[in-house]
Amino acid sequence: MMISRVLVADLPRHVGGHVRVAGWVHRRRRLKSVTFLVIRDRTGLAQVVLTEPGGPPEETVVEVEGLVTVNPQAPGGLELTGPSVGLLSEPAEPPPFDLYRPTVQATLPTVLDNAAVALRHPRLKEAFTVAAASVAGFRSALDGLGFTETQTPKIVSSATESGANVFGIDYFGKRAFLAQSPQFYKQALTGVFERVYEIGPVFRAEPHDTARHLAQYTSLDAELGFIDDHHDVMAVLREAIAGMAAAVPSAEVVVPEEIPEIHFAAAQELIARLSGEDPRGEPDLAPAHERLLSDWARREHGSEFLFVTGYPMAKRPFYTHPDPERPEYSNSFDLLFRGLELVTGGQRLHRHADYVAALAARGESAEPYRDYLAVFAHGMPPHGGFALGLERWTARLLGLPNVRQATLFPRDLHRLTP
Amino acid sequence: MMISRVLVADLPRHVGGHVRVAGWVHRRRRLKSVTFLVIRDRTGLAQVVLTEPGGPPEETVVEVEGLVTVNPQAPGGLELTGPSVGLLSEPAEPPPFDLYRPTVQATLPTVLDNAAVALRHPRLKEAFTVAAASVAGFRSALDGLGFTETQTPKIVSSATESGANVFGIDYFGKRAFLAQSPQFYKQALTGVFERVYEIGPVFRAEPHDTARHLAQYTSLDAELGFIDDHHDVMAVLREAIAGMAAAVPSAEVVVPEEIPEIHFAAAQELIARLSGEDPRGEPDLAPAHERLLSDWARREHGSEFLFVTGYPMAKRPFYTHPDPERPEYSNSFDLLFRGLELVTGGQRLHRHADYVAALAARGESAEPYRDYLAVFAHGMPPHGGFALGLERWTARLLGLPNVRQATLFPRDLHRLTP
Repeated sequence: MMISRVLVADLPRHVGGHVRVAGWVHRRRRLKSVTFLVIRDRTGLAQVVLTEPGGPPEETVVEVEGLVTVNPQAPGGLELTGPSVGLLSEPAEPPPFDLYRPTVQATLPTVLDNAAVALRHPRLKEAFTVAAASVAGFRSALDGLGFTETQTPKIVSSATESGANVFGIDYFGKRAFLAQSPQFYKQALTGVFERVYEIGPVFRAEPHDTARHLAQYTSLDAELGFIDDHHDVMAVLREAIAGMAAAVPSAEVVVPEEIPEIHFAAAQELIARLSGEDPRGEPDLAPAHERLLSDWARREHGSEFLFVTGYPMAKRPFYTHPDPERPEYSNSFDLLFRGLELVTGGQRLHRHADYVAALAARGESAEPYRDYLAVFAHGMPPHGGFALGLERWTARLLGLPNVRQATLFPRDLHRLTP
Repeated sequence: MMISRVLVADLPRHVGGHVRVAGWVHRRRRLKSVTFLVIRDRTGLAQVVLTEPGGPPEETVVEVEGLVTVNPQAPGGLELTGPSVGLLSEPAEPPPFDLYRPTVQATLPTVLDNAAVALRHPRLKEAFTVAAASVAGFRSALDGLGFTETQTPKIVSSATESGANVFGIDYFGKRAFLAQSPQFYKQALTGVFERVYEIGPVFRAEPHDTARHLAQYTSLDAELGFIDDHHDVMAVLREAIAGMAAAVPSAEVVVPEEIPEIHFAAAQELIARLSGEDPRGEPDLAPAHERLLSDWARREHGSEFLFVTGYPMAKRPFYTHPDPERPEYSNSFDLLFRGLELVTGGQRLHRHADYVAALAARGESAEPYRDYLAVFAHGMPPHGGFALGLERWTARLLGLPNVRQATLFPRDLHRLTP
């Protein structure tokens, strides 16, 4: 009977013991009379000392039995001595780039072309450990607030967010589309569960080849009923973000109890004052102005997060609830994080007549929205919600310049594989 | 300042107090001198006693302030008296069927056509509370076993499971497909994280209109490296299922510490003995035989679960690992639950040369699998995994005859809306 496997991270508990580790040969270093193998498993790196020449090449999958020996010069202060090495799987060819160097020496396209191998590099892998923890933190926060997790259709009969940027599907001979968001479904489900979230793929046929556009990304969507206005949504979002940040303590992000808030109109005045430019009349914020506001929030409020509320109705989707006091503005918000919009959300219309009027006012036909409107004929609570892109969060949290570095196998205008 | 909302389930803690509840008018019952409103929120039903005539119709969204009064005859033993009722949202039309009756009096197609309203019915909603809990239990079990959650592409360049039953997409002018499973990605990621799971949509262009086929369903996928054989996968699956069952205590499902196991060859002999039929020579089990085996496991082992292992290689996908002792059989398994296959899984090939040989032996071109094969050129650990359909689990757990009853907004051969 073989002794059971010990993970590298658990080796300190086995000093002086005979153990078996398993993993990849991360690095083979052949000296005159000794070969050092660094073994990588999912928990870390461990050195193995071979006194015979040779030893298997990098990325060979091995199991190693040996004595756990203290050596202050070894990585982690321990090494396996007197080892016997068993080969579990031998590479058919060497990796396209060295995985044992501190950073991968390859361009991003080469890294992405070889993602399944590149991701083995501890530095490249980190983003996805962070993403997994973030998602768990998001769920934990919303579960604690009485939310129900849902799964909704990704194949839909009409575009939800706008006619543009949708992927068409041949659906048993009918024309269908990939869902750009679960917007319709999460709203409808506030009528069932009151509070719902969904974590799943959304699809945008983005014709832009930039550092922040993806054709598929993971959207963290939440929606809640029985709100007074968008501030109830912002309060839930604050808890969700706090849960995500708490799940990644190494990132040391502080989410204030009260995230500072500035109204769109006040933000434009502030931008005018700070920059000398005059953005008034513009219905949205320019990226440079988002950065300016973010810097201001850090300076004035010590916060890396800033809510901008009350975006003009003109630039928000038809389901947005207007500000009852100033109906040219909306009960909506963006959450800026480190200079970039991270989350969009707000209160939605909830009355059937308001939907009919909103579509009419925009000169849009109600027909493509038939199923959507039908829901509001049956008594829907005042509600609102938000959507947050997981890859954008992870990239921003870790300071990754390209959102593809926070996507396991990105899809974009030019990339459909691997 | 309005008093804050109390959920119906929390009313017993407020007897004698003045509270505000909010929800839907589940039932309005007008008697001569009094009207009873039953209010439904996400936690339950509460009776409100109006001494004035009238009261809003069913499915009106209301908030009600009143005194929490003990009344043994009221549902839950409590009611709100001396209420003031505020209207939050009025229905534009009555619901397509009564939601207050013990069961919905409508055919399944009518229910599904009106899903967003139908799901408000407590009996129809239950499946999705169970599904959400099950998913949480699955995650919790695998998180505890060192798994990493992942998100992988749903748009792929070639079919993963077989050429048939894929939905085609126009991907920026290129031909692409909706992923039938995350098989390729989860295997590749055992090379990165060793142990991964993904909970997400998968897509099958099933031309069958049956009670168990869906065009989109939620697949709970797991894959783990450094296994000896499929029994290590089965042990993890047992923990995952136990986690799911524990998360739904009301279902009272017992998952044995050791789920009984029967080899495919022995299962065929047993079927021959029990049924008088002789299935030997057949490469798979017929549904009737799965039921027979399930009944046998319940009788002989007191278990609602049964592993059938060692399915013939002929019926398993090319990436299946053969049984080293009897290479016509595979290191694979199905898990039967209450007469039906619930999970399929097994050990996969992990050596590059074995993949090349397996495709050649089946006369398949390696070209569509280029990215898939490339992963195995770089040292992959022995690994295996499984996939479990969430809707099938929920339907089986609750005894729902049609898997659509466990799907919020089903997609099938004939259904693309709502």
